[in-house]
This record gives sequence, structure tokens and C-alpha cells, in this order.
Amino acid sequence: MSSAARMRLRELLETQQCVRCASVFDPLSSRMADDIGFSVGILGGSVTSLMALGVPDIYLLTLSELAEQARRVCQASGLPVIVDGDNGYGNSLNVMRTVSELEHAGASVITLEDTIIPRPYKQPELNLSSIEEGCSKLNAALRARRDPNLAIVARTHAQQPLESILERVGAYSHTGVDGICIFGKTSKALLEQLRSATDLPLMLIDYNKPEMSLEEMTQLGVRIHFNGHKAYEDAVKATYTSLLELHTGAESGSDIGSEQNAKQLISRFAGQQEFKALSEDYLGPV
Amino acid sequence: MSSAARMRLRELLETQQCVRCASVFDPLSSRMADDIGFSVGILGGSVTSLMALGVPDIYLLTLSELAEQARRVCQASGLPVIVDGDNGYGNSLNVMRTVSELEHAGASVITLEDTIIPRPYKQPELNLSSIEEGCSKLNAALRARRDPNLAIVARTHAQQPLESILERVGAYSHTGVDGICIFGKTSKALLEQLRSATDLPLMLIDYNKPEMSLEEMTQLGVRIHFNGHKAYEDAVKATYTSLLELHTGAESGSDIGSEQNAKQLISRFAGQQEFKALSEDYLGPV
Amino acid sequence: MSSAARMRLRELLETQQCVRCASVFDPLSSRMADDIGFSVGILGGSVTSLMALGVPDIYLLTLSELAEQARRVCQASGLPVIVDGDNGYGNSLNVMRTVSELEHAGASVITLEDTIIPRPYKQPELNLSSIEEGCSKLNAALRARRDPNLAIVARTHAQQPLESILERVGAYSHTGVDGICIFGKTSKALLEQLRSATDLPLMLIDYNKPEMSLEEMTQLGVRIHFNGHKAYEDAVKATYTSLLELHTGAESGSDIGSEQNAKQLISRFAGQQEFKALSEDYLGPV
Amino acid sequence: MSSAARMRLRELLETQQCVRCASVFDPLSSRMADDIGFSVGILGGSVTSLMALGVPDIYLLTLSELAEQARRVCQASGLPVIVDGDNGYGNSLNVMRTVSELEHAGASVITLEDTIIPRPYKQPELNLSSIEEGCSKLNAALRARRDPNLAIVARTHAQQPLESILERVGAYSHTGVDGICIFGKTSKALLEQLRSATDLPLMLIDYNKPEMSLEEMTQLGVRIHFNGHKAYEDAVKATYTSLLELHTGAESGSDIGSEQNAKQLISRFAGQQEFKALSEDYLGPV
Repeated sequence: MSSAARMRLRELLETQQCVRCASVFDPLSSRMADDIGFSVGILGGSVTSLMALGVPDIYLLTLSELAEQARRVCQASGLPVIVDGDNGYGNSLNVMRTVSELEHAGASVITLEDTIIPRPYKQPELNLSSIEEGCSKLNAALRARRDPNLAIVARTHAQQPLESILERVGAYSHTGVDGICIFGKTSKALLEQLRSATDLPLMLIDYNKPEMSLEEMTQLGVRIHFNGHKAYEDAVKATYTSLLELHTGAESGSDIGSEQNAKQLISRFAGQQEFKALSEDYLGPV
Repeated sequence: MSSAARMRLRELLETQQCVRCASVFDPLSSRMADDIGFSVGILGGSVTSLMALGVPDIYLLTLSELAEQARRVCQASGLPVIVDGDNGYGNSLNVMRTVSELEHAGASVITLEDTIIPRPYKQPELNLSSIEEGCSKLNAALRARRDPNLAIVARTHAQQPLESILERVGAYSHTGVDGICIFGKTSKALLEQLRSATDLPLMLIDYNKPEMSLEEMTQLGVRIHFNGHKAYEDAVKATYTSLLELHTGAESGSDIGSEQNAKQLISRFAGQQEFKALSEDYLGPV
Repeated sequence: MSSAARMRLRELLETQQCVRCASVFDPLSSRMADDIGFSVGILGGSVTSLMALGVPDIYLLTLSELAEQARRVCQASGLPVIVDGDNGYGNSLNVMRTVSELEHAGASVITLEDTIIPRPYKQPELNLSSIEEGCSKLNAALRARRDPNLAIVARTHAQQPLESILERVGAYSHTGVDGICIFGKTSKALLEQLRSATDLPLMLIDYNKPEMSLEEMTQLGVRIHFNGHKAYEDAVKATYTSLLELHTGAESGSDIGSEQNAKQLISRFAGQQEFKALSEDYLGPV
Repeated sequence: MSSAARMRLRELLETQQCVRCASVFDPLSSRMADDIGFSVGILGGSVTSLMALGVPDIYLLTLSELAEQARRVCQASGLPVIVDGDNGYGNSLNVMRTVSELEHAGASVITLEDTIIPRPYKQPELNLSSIEEGCSKLNAALRARRDPNLAIVARTHAQQPLESILERVGAYSHTGVDGICIFGKTSKALLEQLRSATDLPLMLIDYNKPEMSLEEMTQLGVRIHFNGHKAYEDAVKATYTSLLELHTGAESGSDIGSEQNAKQLISRFAGQQEFKALSEDYLGPV
């Protein structure tokens, strides 16, 4: 099943077409996305942290926990699934284990990013590794891959200046990876510049309201566009509303709890504030 | 944390009050239910099967998988959690392991039922073990318990005639368990009869529209009423709607997918029909 | 890696040669056996129960625990590994899940046996399912297999009379399985009779001192001979001796503890007697 | 059971007596050590890596894998178990999760060390975090602990100069931890100096041939002495010899394979050389 899904994904990367990516996080959402007609889904580390541990995306999740959820999602349907490999859970040797685990779980794509996580002592939240280390990790990932149809995608969290993004994208493209993933706010201008830095298929993870149509993104080399985990957030909100209705005796479909925002509910019940305070206490002010 | 939750639950069983039980299935739903004001939640084997495997409640889930999810739910908040121990995953020695695992996971209550599951070859779907075996399992469960505050509750799936239910409830009550759980359609008449068979606190799991008020149930000895996993079902429905909106480009809040029924969606994406066919093929007609 | 191992095993079954099977139970023993020159290894449920839980082979181990250990053993080397699927962990639908899990773990062979386990209430320790049910389970296993190179082997625990063994072997052979495994005391006479009942490759699991040479077994259709988990037992004994030496200050290589028998040590530290007493208490006299 | 074991360990730390620590790594070795008369055992990250993954101690093991094995070892007997928490698997927030997981598993002692692991890109193998960061992690660990009887022990890998060790031991002692663990070559002179830096009970992990008697160590404040994982190494060696005997047909007790050294066998079958090469390829020369 992984094998067929990987072939589907490979074909997708080679077409002249950009598709929307579904947030998938358990067997049912994987099958729903496949049934509805999505060509690809993504399992995020952030969502897996929320589901498994009920914590924000501060890298408390272990590779074992991610791989188990990845297996559940990937084996449930024929949908090709992108699994978020974070920065490979350590150094280049950990990257190799990450690739082995997620490949075995059935991932069609593994993204590996150039961040230094979890937050080091007395350092800011977002740290980027050197380009050289980033390339070393990608090389290690490519060596650890057994099925050549599994796609390894380099994901950069570089934000600006533009030159910084272009330099990283250029360097990562030369390692032999199968695609480039840009994380964060993207613009038409940025994408136009990127075309000069790489020929590889692009994947965008941008949680902002899209400024471009799928057609425009297609023209600019984007093949996969992911706009956020709304499907998961809506599920959390629905659970909250349902429990509230049961407790208050309100009718189903009443507007009780409707003032609650899904992202705020998640932040509150995942203890975002409490973890922020712990981070400041033990790692220093942000 | 388990220890305080178990004390809360013990107090609840001793009050003259019946409470509604929340369906809790992951860390966030556990915290939400606690925050909203529920006094108790339940982790069902059926929901765990759907979440972990995407399959209907035909007992493919392993004790390991249940215990892992139980731990996630029980450790996430101070809410006392009832964990559905099915029939103890085998014989009385398996019951003992089930109790050890779920106690370690942090359950405040473990229910153990008198069913023969999974469906035996060429047998009907619902089989009850003998009363004698049921009592043996409950005795084994009580022996395996380490924390005396953990409540062991005998759950019967006997349906009718009434005498059959009363006989089982009477016998199970004499083993020393902490409560009796009735599964299935209940009526005021049944509950009145039950008062003659047991003095133990009652728990009702009845997915039908309630015919009695909490006050009436309180009078009849019920302490915990569970009406179904609507919170989980609503989450599945919300995921489906959200994915459908994303794929079609519909606005959030449009009525796309509104004709879909949550239970039907679950049945469809869990492959209920396919498993029914396999059951008939390999275990005989139902 | 699984794929190449499965090919090696397939070739082995087709040769005119009987090989000894190594007991493998963790990554290092898997690699050692491969390095030493074994053509096949076996991961037993009994050894996995001892390693993971420290309990005798009374079926407290879950499929999840077996599958995890199977994956560790199978992925560690190129050695083809036979994984003991017991009776498929329930009914025919559980058999299907067992096959999926162990196939994903990387097994080259899965054996499925015709026992009713764990011991049912008030029944003797060894119960055989009906032949009809045994065949239904094997059919279900064959349907659940995805990689046609994975071998499904029917294992019978029928002991006597001889006709009973022959009848089962004949029936199981017609389901399309890839081999027949005989468990228990075997003799030349039995094997000669078996040739009339099946053309399939034979595997013997006989913990008694072998009465036949590999050549004789080869002539009688045996391809794999497994004589017991001595490698694991020797490891347990060595651990005991080593701890004893450390505690007493004895020299390494002293004969302290040499009077201890490995099987007795295992029985003692796995609580064999205690579990026997529990079995009699809760399941009835053996 | 954890609770009684923690009390035993607390008493041990308060006595005027130094005990030898057993290497325990699975349920049977835990029970054996308890039965033989050890007062404490240790589960090492190195041994867990070998058992679970068959890899050297280069920090590929996840916290989930360690915690699972810790639970198996700690629940198997009444023996107090020291669990090797490495550096807490990340930053101070990861330390908090590490403590929660290992406490839940049943550890009586968790050691937390001041290393930067896994090896960072282009850095030497052994890196020490700053003393300030070390203290921050210990403070986080103390905050995460729920059972006050669980002992948190600060472990330093500082080697020399002597002042460096003393400075760290002094600083860690002021955080409120329950003991200090010195890793590496220790001498009488070092221990005498240490008495001036801390009043806390000492634990020594020194794989060299001991130069001091238990009595001398007692006088110098040592309460726990661990000299290496010989029990595990002997088990690996015994497995190898047993497999070799089976394959060659040698008698049990022959001297086949006797020239093999246990540590060398482990190094070879864990791929020590291959991982060293990968480390040099992807992380730079050592």
C-alpha cells in the first residue's frame, strides 16, 4: 500500500499542477481525505503532540510516538502522506533513524527542516542550523532511505532576508532531495525568486490566508499547498461544544460555546501559557 | 494524580446523586470535560478502536493499545476516568493483567463484562459467559487490584428475560465489586427490580434517548449515566465537513456535508460493511 | 530487507535440504545467527513473554508486544525469521490482523496453530479447535497476506492418535498454505505417514533430543528443524551466574551457581508455580 | 510496589554503607538481582539501546523506548531501580517529561547528566553543558517529580581538572537533588576532595577494576557502586556460544567460541565501526 501511494505522490510531483494538502491525523481522517478526493495529506508534529500528549509544539513528542501515529495514518488508506520529520530528532545519525522509522511506517514524503530544536538554553525560540549542517542531514537522510520512491523534502524555516532563503534553497537542492518545502509567509515575489534558486518541485506550508490561486502557484512551481490543520481544530471545537451541550442540557445545534475560537481552545487546553512560563523559567526569557 | 481522582470517584459513588458521564478519548477531551464540570469520564473500547485502528468494535484492539490510550487520557487531567476493560481480554488470568495495566494507566474505575468476545466461530455475535465464570473473573480482578481506591465494576450485557439480569447482578454483587453497570436499554421498571437484587451503586450505559431524569435515576440508585460517544462522533463529523470545505472551496459554515450523519460516516469509514462480510465469510452467518 | 529475506526462505523451502533453526529474540541474536551461518531463525511467543513480561507461556502477551519484538528481530539482519503467531490471537478476524501486523514487522514465515488459547474456564490446558475452524483461520490468513512471498505455515498441536494428526495435516494442506509445522514429539514413523497426507514442506518443533539426523529428516520432507530455545536459556543462566558472582565476590569462571539448571531458573523467576496456582484457582483444576 | 522500593532506596542512601549495584535490564534479571540479595539495580541507556535497537550508545534510543523497558524492569520485582535518564532527552522541558515518564515507569532513582548529546555537528564526542544549564535542568527535574520519595541524582561527566569536577558537584548539590553520581575513573584522592564539595550521598559509575574496597568507599561517602554491565555482556556471550554450538554440532560446554570477548562481540554485532564511520562522515572527524 505504501508502495502504490509513493508512486501516486511521485507522479503528482511531476505534473504541472498544484494540489491542496489535507491535514490527516488518524485512520478515519486519512480515509476521509482519500475518499473526498485529496491527492495528498500531511501528518504534523504539532497535531501529533496535541493528540498524543495534549501539549503544544515544543518538541516533547518522541520519534516513537510520531512513527506510531504515522503508521496508523499511512496504513489506513491509499492516500500518500507527508510526515513531518521535524529536524530529524537530533543529529545526522538521528536523522537516519528518523528516515528508517518513518519509511517503515509508510510515509510517502518525509520533510526534514533546518531548525535547532528543542529550544536550547538561553537561546531564542527559532534557531537555524548552519547550511552546512542542513546539507549533511539531508545527505544522511538520502543514504538512510531504502525505497527510492520515498521522497525526501528539504524544509527551510529561514524567513528573511530573501537572500538567506535563496541561499538555503539552493544548497539543499544540490543534495539530491526530491523537493523543497517553504515554511511561513510566502508571496508571489518570493516564489518568483525561488524559481531562480531551484528546479525542484515546491511545497508551501503557509497558515496565512492564501494570496494566490492554485493556478498562480502552479505557474510558480508549487505542487503542494498546505494551509493549516483546520480539520483537526474543527474536531477539537466540535468535541468541546458537544461536551458543553451534554453538561448544560442544551440542544444539539444550539449556539452554546459558539463564541469559542478553536485555536484558543487548543491553546488553553494544551497549557500554552503554562509551558511558556516554564520555558522562561528554565530556558530564559524569549 | 490517579490517587486524587480515585478518591473523587469513590466520593461520587457514595453520594445520593446521579451524574452524566462524558466521553473522553484523548488528553484534550479529558481536560475539557474536567474544566466544563463533569465529575467523571469514560474511555470506550469502541472509540479507542476507531481512533487507533479505524475499525469497528469487533475486538481487534489489543490491551496494549487500550492501556496506552487510557494512560494518555487519565494522566491529562484530574478527572476520574472509567476505562472499559471489555471482558478482560481473555480468561481470568488475562483479567488480572488487564487490571494491572489499566490500574497503572491511572483508571479510577475498570468495568469488566460477561461477554464472550471476540465472536467465536459459528456462534452468534452476543454470547454471555456463565455466571460462574463471570464471578471468577471478578474475583480475579479484585485480587489483581493493588490500590484499594480503584473501583472494579461488574458490567452485564444480559438483556432479558428480566430474571436473567437480576440473577447476574445478584451474583456479581456478592463478589465484592464496587458497582454494577447495566449495558443496554433500561427502564424505570428494570431499575426498580434491580434495587431488590443489589445495594451497590449503579452505572447505566444506555445509548437510547433517556426516559428518566437524573433525579429519577438518582432515586433508583443510579450514580453514573452514560448516553453515548456523541462528543467523539461530533468530532469525526466536523473533520469530515472541514475536509470537504477545503476540497470544494466552500466557506466555513456552509451547509456542505450537513446531510451526513455522524454515525453513518463512522460506519462507512471504519468499514463496518466490509467487516460484517468478513465475519460472515470466516465465522459463519450472524 | 524483509523482501530479500522472504525470497531466501522461499528458496530454502524448495530445496532438498533440512536446516536447523536458531532461536532469535532480539537484534543481536538475529545478527549473530545470520553471521554464524543459520538460514532461518524463529521468534517464539514463549521467549517473548519471558523477555517482555517475565511470565510463562500462558498467553498474557499481546499481539502488539509480539509485533514490536518481531520488528526488532526481523529488521536487524537479513536472516529470514519465523514468527510464532500462536492461534492468531482470537478468531479469524483477529488472525487477519495478526498477519497484517507480523507481515509489517517483517516476518518471513508466520505460523498459525489450531489451539484454543488462552485456557478457557474449566477446560483442560490443551484444547484443539475444530478442523473446520482451523481451515477457516488459515483461509483468513491467506486473504490478509499482502506480500505473496510471505509464507503462511499451518501448525498443528494434535498429538494422537496418528489419524488425528494426519486428518488435520491433510485438511490444512488443502487451504493453500505454504508449509506444515508439527509441534511435539515426532518420530520417523510419524513422518513417513505424513508424506502420504501432504506434499508441503515440513517444519518440526520438537524439544526432545533428536532421534533422526538432518539427512533422515531431509528424506522425509522436513525442511526446518527447531529443537528449542537453548540460546535464550543459556543467556538467562549466564545472567544469573554473573549476578551471583558479583554479589558473592566470586571470580568469573568459578563454578558458583553451576548446579542451577537454566529451565528451572526460568520457571522459578517467571513464577511458573504461582501462575499454576492462579490457573487452578480461577480456571479450575488442570 | 514502586512506593515500597523507593522507601528502601531512601533508607539505603541514609545508611553508612556502600552497596554494589546490579545491572538489570529485563523482568527476569530484575527478579534475580532481588532474589540474590542486591539492594539496588540499574537500567542503563547503553544496554537498552543494545536490547531494543542493537545499536551502540550513540543516543538513537527514544525516551519512549527507555520508559517502556524501565517499566518492565521496575514492575517486575521489589528491587529499587536506578534509571539512566541521560541528559533528560533535550532541554529542561524535555527533562520534565523524562522525569514524569520514568517516575510513572516506577524508577526509584533517576540520574540526569550534564552532557550535550547526541554529538553535535562538528563537535567532539564528549561535550559538557554549562554548569548553569546543568542546574537549570536539575531544578526542572525536581519540579516535575510528583512522589517526593523518588530520588533525583545529578550525574556529572566532568573528568578533569579536579577543580572542574568539584565546581560542578558543589553547584549541583545546591539545587536540592538527593545524590551525586560520578561517572568515570575515580580514585581515593578524588573522593576525599569530593567530601569537601558535597554532603550528599555519592554514587560511582566506574567501569575500571575497583581500587578501593566497599569499606573504603563507605568511609568516603559512597553509597552505591556500579562497576559495569557484565551480567548483560555475559548473556550476550552465552547466546553467541550457544548458537555456535548448535550450528557446528559441538557439545554444550565445549570451548568453541571461548576466544571471543563479550565486549568485542557486542561491538561487532552492534556495528560500532559502521556507526563510527557514519559519525565521521556526517558529523565530522572525532
